[in-house]
Amino acid sequence: MPAMRVTFQGERGAFSEEAARRLLGKRIELAPSASFEEAFRRLARGEVHCGVLPIENTLAGSVHENYDLLLHYRLPIVAETEVRIVHNLIAAPGVKLRQVRRVYSHPVALGQCRSFFRRNRQIEAVPFYDTAGSVKMLMEKRPKDAAAIAAAAAASIYGARILRRGLEDDKQNYTRFFLLVRKAAAMPALRRMGAPGKTSIVFSTRNVPGALFKCLGVFALRDINLTKIESRPVRGRPWEYFFYLDFMGHPKETRIRNALRHLGELTEFLRVLGSYPPAKK
Amino acid sequence: MPAMRVTFQGERGAFSEEAARRLLGKRIELAPSASFEEAFRRLARGEVHCGVLPIENTLAGSVHENYDLLLHYRLPIVAETEVRIVHNLIAAPGVKLRQVRRVYSHPVALGQCRSFFRRNRQIEAVPFYDTAGSVKMLMEKRPKDAAAIAAAAAASIYGARILRRGLEDDKQNYTRFFLLVRKAAAMPALRRMGAPGKTSIVFSTRNVPGALFKCLGVFALRDINLTKIESRPVRGRPWEYFFYLDFMGHPKETRIRNALRHLGELTEFLRVLGSYPPAKK
Repeated sequence: MPAMRVTFQGERGAFSEEAARRLLGKRIELAPSASFEEAFRRLARGEVHCGVLPIENTLAGSVHENYDLLLHYRLPIVAETEVRIVHNLIAAPGVKLRQVRRVYSHPVALGQCRSFFRRNRQIEAVPFYDTAGSVKMLMEKRPKDAAAIAAAAAASIYGARILRRGLEDDKQNYTRFFLLVRKAAAMPALRRMGAPGKTSIVFSTRNVPGALFKCLGVFALRDINLTKIESRPVRGRPWEYFFYLDFMGHPKETRIRNALRHLGELTEFLRVLGSYPPAKK
Repeated sequence: MPAMRVTFQGERGAFSEEAARRLLGKRIELAPSASFEEAFRRLARGEVHCGVLPIENTLAGSVHENYDLLLHYRLPIVAETEVRIVHNLIAAPGVKLRQVRRVYSHPVALGQCRSFFRRNRQIEAVPFYDTAGSVKMLMEKRPKDAAAIAAAAAASIYGARILRRGLEDDKQNYTRFFLLVRKAAAMPALRRMGAPGKTSIVFSTRNVPGALFKCLGVFALRDINLTKIESRPVRGRPWEYFFYLDFMGHPKETRIRNALRHLGELTEFLRVLGSYPPAKK
């Protein structure tokens, strides 16, 4: 069987690559995309078998663009995983920490290492398009006074050196990723993850008082545990919202099937985005 | 009386400046800040009388950083307003549309003018730190082949020319702004806005099933209309959330006072962020 072809946003060595390996094992073919939208588009066109996309970080919050793309592209979620984010200071071989005056990385990563920059006032944080991409750039241009912040994997992939480990301000730094496929077919790699006991949906309510309360009641009255709620604007209808819910359970269970039918009575729009095994903690 | 000193994020001519004038009139002294955090910090230190901060856009969604800053700094919300976002193509005098090969602006503004870039394939979108700031930069550097996307006010402030008006893909493009003060004292400019009939709060629930449902019930069972819900991660407690609610009513009303006391029974943390007159539509 040919290796599974997987796309993700970022350069080789990105945190998304680590998520892909956690989800699918080592025997995968990696097809990096320049943007989240490109990753969705390539998967929708069938150029890859699956995509690994971040949906939420415990410090930065939801990746809202990917919520919007989940709605736009109808690509089912078949798995989730959580990756502990460890930021490392990485430079080309020969560059010493005391020489470093500029550090490149994605703005979210720079914002998660504020205490490092406070302690090292001589170093400027420079926003770059990607964490692993900043390591790749340093290895091409070889500046003597610059470093990057990225995952350890980025250092080994590009032959760079780790100058300091664990730069992140807060160790409770996890990113949750979804595995998306074109069609929810059987994937051997998913079988070992267990039963699909978690479901993600999106809906919009009728614009009446108490509408969201009633929608949550569908779940609360059946003792279905919600794990996440996110709201996003509805285009063309100012101050109206789509609500994204994650809950424990699978539409094959009677109470979940009943809950979704009940929710259908209360909503203008409702779609199941996917059911999947909950990430192992 | 000296003019009110107002801070906002961005350069002179930013959409936030338009919001400040809508809220406070023309007789104000403008004190631009480089970042949202700097605007909050200057207000907290008493360097300015008030701050005008975007909280939500009908296309891009919530400005999550400002939700986090509202929690961190205890600066009461005393007013809100909505500004219709009109993006204009702006260049230095003498530059013609057919010469333009690069267009600078804030990434959110560039992302809201996608159809313009699709129709003009010869033009590259270049992310810049600020909409009005990109006009300021063009007037300093005077490139012959570049333009910016910004509010019309930015063109008049810096002496630039508007090449094309209304570049935004979607006309239902509004940004909602909050007026923050250091202490909620009487401000003459606010009196004409009417009674403070809207309130914003933030809370975290106990981590039990149905917790959010019960919290929304506090309002639904009293026929209090919710206008917005937003969730943000709690630092150091992965996969737990703060909920921000906006609702119609003021804590001086008995049913609102009762609702907030009831909510206090169900939450671990609860704070009123402010009460203010609803924006005129």
